[in-house]
Amino acid sequence: MEITTIIDILGTISFAISGALTAMRKKMDVFGILIIALVTSVGGGTLRDILIGKTPVSWMLNMTFVYVIFAATIVAIIFRSQLKYVRRSLFLFDTIGIALYTMAGVQIASAAGLHPVICVVLGTISACFGGVLRDILCNEIPVIFHKEIYATVCILGGSIYLSLETYGMPKVYAMLVAGSITILIRTLAVVRKWSLPSVYRKQHA
Amino acid sequence: MEITTIIDILGTISFAISGALTAMRKKMDVFGILIIALVTSVGGGTLRDILIGKTPVSWMLNMTFVYVIFAATIVAIIFRSQLKYVRRSLFLFDTIGIALYTMAGVQIASAAGLHPVICVVLGTISACFGGVLRDILCNEIPVIFHKEIYATVCILGGSIYLSLETYGMPKVYAMLVAGSITILIRTLAVVRKWSLPSVYRKQHA
Amino acid sequence: MEITTIIDILGTISFAISGALTAMRKKMDVFGILIIALVTSVGGGTLRDILIGKTPVSWMLNMTFVYVIFAATIVAIIFRSQLKYVRRSLFLFDTIGIALYTMAGVQIASAAGLHPVICVVLGTISACFGGVLRDILCNEIPVIFHKEIYATVCILGGSIYLSLETYGMPKVYAMLVAGSITILIRTLAVVRKWSLPSVYRKQHA
Repeated sequence: MEITTIIDILGTISFAISGALTAMRKKMDVFGILIIALVTSVGGGTLRDILIGKTPVSWMLNMTFVYVIFAATIVAIIFRSQLKYVRRSLFLFDTIGIALYTMAGVQIASAAGLHPVICVVLGTISACFGGVLRDILCNEIPVIFHKEIYATVCILGGSIYLSLETYGMPKVYAMLVAGSITILIRTLAVVRKWSLPSVYRKQHA
Repeated sequence: MEITTIIDILGTISFAISGALTAMRKKMDVFGILIIALVTSVGGGTLRDILIGKTPVSWMLNMTFVYVIFAATIVAIIFRSQLKYVRRSLFLFDTIGIALYTMAGVQIASAAGLHPVICVVLGTISACFGGVLRDILCNEIPVIFHKEIYATVCILGGSIYLSLETYGMPKVYAMLVAGSITILIRTLAVVRKWSLPSVYRKQHA
Repeated sequence: MEITTIIDILGTISFAISGALTAMRKKMDVFGILIIALVTSVGGGTLRDILIGKTPVSWMLNMTFVYVIFAATIVAIIFRSQLKYVRRSLFLFDTIGIALYTMAGVQIASAAGLHPVICVVLGTISACFGGVLRDILCNEIPVIFHKEIYATVCILGGSIYLSLETYGMPKVYAMLVAGSITILIRTLAVVRKWSLPSVYRKQHA
C-alpha cells in the first residue's frame, strides 16, 4: 500500500469521526450518525467530481473508503467518551487529511485541464465541503465561514503545490513540500488562534 | 400502463403531498409550496442520477411526473384541511413509494455496474433524499436522521432485493418479494413505534 | 465585447454584492463572504449545468466571471456602508441579471433538446438557485419561497421568451422583448409590493 493511500485513509477516518461526533452532539440516531460521517468524509470529493463531470463519483468506485468510514463511525460511537483523550491525534489526522485532500483535488482538476485558479478552488472544495455539508445537515452555519482559517490554509497549500509543479518540481516532492507547509500553518493557526482579519472592526474607524 | 408505473405515480403523488404539507406549515407562498413538492418528489432520484452521471436527470425527460406533481400540489393546497382524513391512505402511498423508489434506485445502480453496497446506498438515497432536501429547504434537521427508521427500512429492502436478484430470481418477483417485505416492516415499524437502538443510553452504563 | 456579456457581468456583480451583503450581516469572515458571493453568483448556473450534464460547469471555464466576483466582493467589503446609497442601482442590476440569467438558462436547456416546461424550469433555476443556496448556507429559509414573486417573474419571462422563439422570432429580439417584460414586471412587483395570492386566508372562508 502506498504512503498516500495510508495518509488518505487516516484523513478519511478523521473526517468520519469528526462527522460522527457532530451528529452525536445533535442526538441523531445510528443511521443519522453514519450518514453525517459519510457525508463529512466524501462530500468534498463528491462535489469536486460532480462539478468537473467525473462520474460515477470516486468513492462509489472504491469500497475501501466506504468500509473505513463504516468502521470509524462504529468505533466513534462505542468509544465516544474516550475520544476526548485522543483529540490531539485526531487533530493531527484531520490536518494531514486536509492537506492531502487539497493536493489530491488540485491534481485531479489540473489533470482535467482547468485554469490554475479553478484548480485551487477545487482543491479547497475537496478539503472543506464535507464539513460544510455536515454543518448544513446539522442545521448550523458552516463553521469554516465564520471561525477558522481552515479554508485559507487550503487555498495557500493548493497554490504552493501548483506553483511548485508548474516550475517543474516532480509531483511527489511538490506534494511533500506543499503538504508540509499546509500542515505547519494549520497547526500554528490553531495553536496561536490565528484568524482572518475581521472586516467588522472598520465600522468604528 | 404498467403496474410499476401506476405505483410510481402513486408514490410521486404521496411525496409531493408530503412536501406541500410541510411547505404550508412553514407558511410558504404558492411558488415555495410547488418547489418543495417537486424537490421532495424528485430530489432522491436526481441526486442518484447526478452521482452516477446519468444526465439529463430522469424527471427532465418524462413530463408525466412533472404534471402529476403540479396537480398533486394544487390538490394539496385546495384540500389541505381535508387531507387529515386521508392520512392513512397517504401513509400507504408513501410506504409503497419508498419501497418502489428503493427498488428502482438499486436496479439503476446495478445496471451501471456498481458494487452491491453502493447499489443499496443509491436505492436508499433515491427513496430518502427528497425528504432530506425538503427538510433542509425548510430549515430543519432532516427528520430521518433522528426520528424514524425510514432509511433503515430502505437499506433492508434494497439488500433483500439485491440478494434475491443475485441468486437468480427474476427481477419482477424479486421486486415483489423485497417490496412487500419493505412495506410490511415499515408499517410494523410505524404502528409499533420501532426505532433504532439509541446510542445515548450507554452513557449511564 | 457583446452587449449580453456586459449585461451578464453587471448581473454577476449584482448577485455577488447581494451575497456579500448577506454574509456580512451574518458576521462571516473574509473567506465566508467570498464563498457566499461566489455561490450566489454562480450557484444557479451550476445547478442547471449539473442537472443537464454540461460539465465542467460553465464558470470553471471562464475566468472573467471569477475575477469579477472577487473584485465585486472586495468592493462590497470596503464600501459596504456606502452601498445603501446605491441600492437603487443595485436593484436595477439585479433585475437585469435575473432577466438575463433566465433567458440564458432557457436557451441552454432548449439547445439541449429538453421539453419547453423543463426549459422554463431550468431558466428559473439559473436565475433563482444562487439566492436559495445563499440562504441555505446562511441558515435561513430561502427568501424566494415565502416573500417575493422573484421566481414567478422568471417563469413568466422564460415562458414568453420560449413562445416568441417557437413562433419564429429571432433569438436576439425574443430575448429583448421577453427580457424587457421581465424587468418591467419585476420592477412593478417590487414598487407596488405585489405578492402571490396567499393560500392561507382560505382557512377562514
